[in-house]
Formats: sequence, C-alpha cells, structure tokens
Amino acid sequence: MGKAAFSPERSTCPISTTLDLVGDKWSLLIIRDLTIGKSRYGEFLESPEGITTNILANRLKRLEAAGLIEKRPYQTRPIRHEYRLTEMGAKLLPVLQAMCRWANEFVDGTFVPPDTFLSRKA
Amino acid sequence: MGKAAFSPERSTCPISTTLDLVGDKWSLLIIRDLTIGKSRYGEFLESPEGITTNILANRLKRLEAAGLIEKRPYQTRPIRHEYRLTEMGAKLLPVLQAMCRWANEFVDGTFVPPDTFLSRKA
Repeated sequence: MGKAAFSPERSTCPISTTLDLVGDKWSLLIIRDLTIGKSRYGEFLESPEGITTNILANRLKRLEAAGLIEKRPYQTRPIRHEYRLTEMGAKLLPVLQAMCRWANEFVDGTFVPPDTFLSRKA
Repeated sequence: MGKAAFSPERSTCPISTTLDLVGDKWSLLIIRDLTIGKSRYGEFLESPEGITTNILANRLKRLEAAGLIEKRPYQTRPIRHEYRLTEMGAKLLPVLQAMCRWANEFVDGTFVPPDTFLSRKA
C-alpha cells in the first residue's frame, strides 16, 4: 500500500513526476478542498475559483486512478459519491503549505491560512 | 522589492495564486533547472523531460514577467541571454523539496536527490 498507481512519465525526477500528476491549475485545489473537509461534487463546484463541471469530473477521475483520492457512494437513485484523500493524497499537504508560505510572502492580497492549516502534520 | 508583478487571478487563496503562475507541467522544471545551476536556453532544452522550444520561450517570458527570473545578455551578435532566479523564484525551493519527498515516498522509480538539494535553505 501507499505506492502510486502511476509511474514517472517524462523522467525519473521526483519533481517532474509530481507535475505529471498534479501539474495543472486545478488538481491541487481539489486536494486542498478535501484537506479542509469538503467531500462532495457540489462542494468542489462552490469553491471560489469556479472550476467547471467537466474539468472537475476529469480531475476527480485522474486523481482516483492515480490513487490520491477514493470515492464511495453515499446515496443511490441517483447514485452520488463522496470523495476522500488516501494517505498518498493527504501527504501532499506539505506541498500545499509550502505554496501558501511562498504566496503569502511574495504576492500581495493573498490571505494567510489559519495556523491549524499551515502547521498541520500530514 | 520581493513582491510579485502579478496578482491573484482566481481567488485570494495562496495555493490558487501559486498555481495561477506555476500550475503547469513545465514552469517548476525550469525553476528546478535554475536552482541546480543551469542558466541558458540550450541547457533547459537538454533536460530529460524534453521541453519544446516554444513552450520554453513562453514559460521564460511568463516567469520573467512575474518576477521569478531575470535575464541578462551574455553575448551580442546574435544576442543571447542567460537567466537566473530572483529571490522570489529561489524561494520556491521548499515547494520543489516537498514534491521530491512526496514522489520519493509514493512513486516507485523516482530518484532521490542529493541531500544538498533536499536540505538546502532557499
């Protein structure tokens, strides 16, 4: 357990490999949302960045296939799923925290997350 | 000094803001290359991920416009530039290091960078 369902694509560089999977504008926002307790499709859509339904569906599928998130049904007729982070997905937290510290230092107008987020252990 | 030439685009979330700028498969690889001492166009092209000339030119322009890198000429006729990280760009190192630790833990086949990289202070 704990090993990815995907392999390095472009090189064996661990940075390149991470970007193969979450190197886009949206995947890490979904990981962020799950980290702060969101779990359902409609909750992701409500985030202020305004992800579209087709991008959201695509990214959820990719993140699940790679082993970063898992889904389970919480309702039938119609079927509805909720999502949660696997250990592998949860352990991206230090990447998110480093991004927060960087943007807070260098980009005016970004909000400073609560210490419960910035100092949380993955 | 030290503040970005760009503003949050999608929300004031610092994660979203970081991804506005480097949320793609290539920008952080250029930052990586500069961090490990590469500085010239041809050196970036030689990296194993195989960036294309048009993507490289585009990303260098964006990173420079955002204040993460700067260029200076090292040759005239024809003019050639070399690039280096600004303080703002160099301070992305903790993001790169966190990605390394994550991929090394969860993705088989990624190489473990030397401690001089993983423990280096930005």
